[in-house]
Amino acid sequence: MATSNVRVYRDLMGENEKWAAQTREFLGAKKLTMLNLIGSPGSGKTTLLECLVQEAGDRVRFSVLEGDVETTHDAERIARLDIPVSQLLTNGACHLEAKLVHYALKDLATSEGSVVVVENVGNLVCPAEFDIGEHAKIAVLSVTEGEDKPLKYPLLFRECKAVVLSKTDLLPHLRFDIAQCRDYVRQVNASVPVFEVSAMSGAGVRELLNWVLSVRA
Amino acid sequence: MATSNVRVYRDLMGENEKWAAQTREFLGAKKLTMLNLIGSPGSGKTTLLECLVQEAGDRVRFSVLEGDVETTHDAERIARLDIPVSQLLTNGACHLEAKLVHYALKDLATSEGSVVVVENVGNLVCPAEFDIGEHAKIAVLSVTEGEDKPLKYPLLFRECKAVVLSKTDLLPHLRFDIAQCRDYVRQVNASVPVFEVSAMSGAGVRELLNWVLSVRA
Repeated sequence: MATSNVRVYRDLMGENEKWAAQTREFLGAKKLTMLNLIGSPGSGKTTLLECLVQEAGDRVRFSVLEGDVETTHDAERIARLDIPVSQLLTNGACHLEAKLVHYALKDLATSEGSVVVVENVGNLVCPAEFDIGEHAKIAVLSVTEGEDKPLKYPLLFRECKAVVLSKTDLLPHLRFDIAQCRDYVRQVNASVPVFEVSAMSGAGVRELLNWVLSVRA
Repeated sequence: MATSNVRVYRDLMGENEKWAAQTREFLGAKKLTMLNLIGSPGSGKTTLLECLVQEAGDRVRFSVLEGDVETTHDAERIARLDIPVSQLLTNGACHLEAKLVHYALKDLATSEGSVVVVENVGNLVCPAEFDIGEHAKIAVLSVTEGEDKPLKYPLLFRECKAVVLSKTDLLPHLRFDIAQCRDYVRQVNASVPVFEVSAMSGAGVRELLNWVLSVRA
């Protein structure tokens, strides 16, 4: 087939990326920082959020978008902290997409300079594939899940800007090798900081909060 | 618009369902029973499988298809039990589809009357949506994940024929209410049996094996 001089315009950004870009613009204009919290079901994302908000006190204001397949349990828990929160239900889908986040974010009562945390659907695979316009993804891995998850679900651990090893208070009762897990994280993401956190004892929460403050826009 | 008498033929079964149907035919012809093990990353599916195989002894032969996004860790673990096993890698996808399972199953060295366990990708959402031709789905929920998962991920708990509450040896160290969790399971699936299992102590493994034998084709 002969080549021609007809110009080709390609839609370089898909639908999701367009909404993510609009969200980034909105966040910039409102001086907001958005974090995307990703981890397995029951890895302790909501509890971690509760700890962060309580630790923060007046140092930074938080607001939250809670992603779930069904129920409003998590948003109800966060609402008790007296911060702005909405529940995003995915209607069966296994991850949040940028459009839903965008509309919910615009309706959320955020204040300038505050941090919006999006708690994604409990899932180590799909949420990592969808840009929602966040400044950083945070991977939450409970020490009950085993050391090898960074190798088995490498996309999330490669994409994230911080890793939280949660439920460290359970370590005495588990065969979990922290050094081995840190090594697996480094194999897929050489420079990402890893925080060991226990919501029960409060260990590591301050260090994680300091990191959140350091990435603030 | 006027109605016409043109006949419409619709492809009622999608691609996945066609492969699942072929697998069911294959299983029937070879007198095999296939179970689809679904749970979060780190919920203890592989360890549970190891326990089942060891408990079974000569009572039934097992073979295994290990589903993962990446790595062959789990198939290597199962291979040490000296039973037929293959690793299915999804190339980034968050669930197993029927076609991949079908081809791997046909190559697996199964024997008549045996039980094939497919360990799906660690994920509570998507694997429940894809029929792979199995006789029964088994939902595995670690007690470290919290009681509310049956309500938050209802499709799996509605579709499954058995629920395993795993890692029960950790209960003394957790705030996990077994009765509450059983009640949540019943809210989405009134009659499904729930097994409390600890791979560490071996508690509940025999009861689960007896259930597996009872559903054998």
